[in-house]
Amino acid sequence: MSGYVLTLKYDGTDFCGWQFQPNARTVQTELQNGCEKVFGFRPSVTGCSRTDSGVHAKGFVALVGAENTIPEEGLIQALNSALPDDIAVTHAKFTEKNFHPRYDAKGKEYIYTVRNSKIRDPFSDRFAWLYGRKIDVDLANKLCKEFVGTHDFKAFMAAGSKIVDSVRTVKYFEVARENEDVIFRVAADGFLYNMVRIMVGTVVGAASGIKTEPIKDIIEGLDRAKAGLTAPAKGLCLNKVFYDTEF
Amino acid sequence: MSGYVLTLKYDGTDFCGWQFQPNARTVQTELQNGCEKVFGFRPSVTGCSRTDSGVHAKGFVALVGAENTIPEEGLIQALNSALPDDIAVTHAKFTEKNFHPRYDAKGKEYIYTVRNSKIRDPFSDRFAWLYGRKIDVDLANKLCKEFVGTHDFKAFMAAGSKIVDSVRTVKYFEVARENEDVIFRVAADGFLYNMVRIMVGTVVGAASGIKTEPIKDIIEGLDRAKAGLTAPAKGLCLNKVFYDTEF
Repeated sequence: MSGYVLTLKYDGTDFCGWQFQPNARTVQTELQNGCEKVFGFRPSVTGCSRTDSGVHAKGFVALVGAENTIPEEGLIQALNSALPDDIAVTHAKFTEKNFHPRYDAKGKEYIYTVRNSKIRDPFSDRFAWLYGRKIDVDLANKLCKEFVGTHDFKAFMAAGSKIVDSVRTVKYFEVARENEDVIFRVAADGFLYNMVRIMVGTVVGAASGIKTEPIKDIIEGLDRAKAGLTAPAKGLCLNKVFYDTEF
Repeated sequence: MSGYVLTLKYDGTDFCGWQFQPNARTVQTELQNGCEKVFGFRPSVTGCSRTDSGVHAKGFVALVGAENTIPEEGLIQALNSALPDDIAVTHAKFTEKNFHPRYDAKGKEYIYTVRNSKIRDPFSDRFAWLYGRKIDVDLANKLCKEFVGTHDFKAFMAAGSKIVDSVRTVKYFEVARENEDVIFRVAADGFLYNMVRIMVGTVVGAASGIKTEPIKDIIEGLDRAKAGLTAPAKGLCLNKVFYDTEF
């Protein structure tokens, strides 16, 4: 479909994820409400991903099904006035082409932030997992490398998911410490349900002294029960979506 | 008074400042409530400064009037469990000495963050002034230097303040750009009411093409009306308080 390709940032704390649900506050609904105010009708709004409740985004891509009637810079300003404070539009680009934010995505990059401290921080609590056991970042990086490549990631998919093909290609998965924050960055051609959160939970556990099987064995075992815990949603942020075209 | 010297971080957004007020949510009241839960009585709580409504802190110092009955590490954990999410205790140190967080302070450092963009950011909106006109940071730095030293800062004090002696010594005042953020850092032996916010408002205006008198003339004029606007509270953060002793 043609329309406006928007890039969004949102603080996911107070949203029940992206996708429309009756009686729940979602990003899709708020974006559609904002678009209705600006365009004068209620356009379709299609997202690149169904982010979970509490997950944040700095580079979410959505398509608004509308004709090319509003200049892009003006649309950004108008939408940012119409949208609530926890969503902002950072880019807008009209495309004539047939574009689908989800099906046309070639890959995605997520960032996961762990605050590696015993002490809460009001400035990062909404955006980081507070984890008190000391994380060995060098070890964590070695473990991360074992995920890179094409594997069946069934062990890193939430139990009960209905997806049949759980083979994905992880392009990179790396971690660095910035003061008390331990920041993971991962890209893949696609992610299974809760995949990043289970990968991070497993690496954080293994790199902080919790007994864990070798990553290779966990991957090959295809058994969710062998992987670590699912890291909390609030540390996760969809940072970038890759397409053949730059918007 | 002797007692526990606490260092606090708080997100000031939802507080009517530090100081107790009837029927208003303040940091002092919340800290006193938390201490009451932990100590079993309601101790006195004395702060280093009366931060304004909406102003944040990363290094606020408070004295809790209590005997040395709880180990410091345990007190940090207990208070962080008892306090609301927007306040955290980062350090605690019992002192036998007669200490007053405000009168014993030798100086303070504030950080002021401007988001120099036309586009809102849900991740920084609570902590930065959104300012759309392009700020020339080199020029801003030159202007900042003119504040350094001992001057009568009456022109940079909120009109109506009752302070008689408005002479203060600014130790440093500098600014740097980090992507879209323009970050000011200023230290002085003390600050007048709204002084940092008026200094920042004046420099931001002058460094973004708003006609302003030379800083030297504004300082010497002793007239609030000649300085620029008062930058919003939400960009301001009390970063550090200096004492003769390290806590």
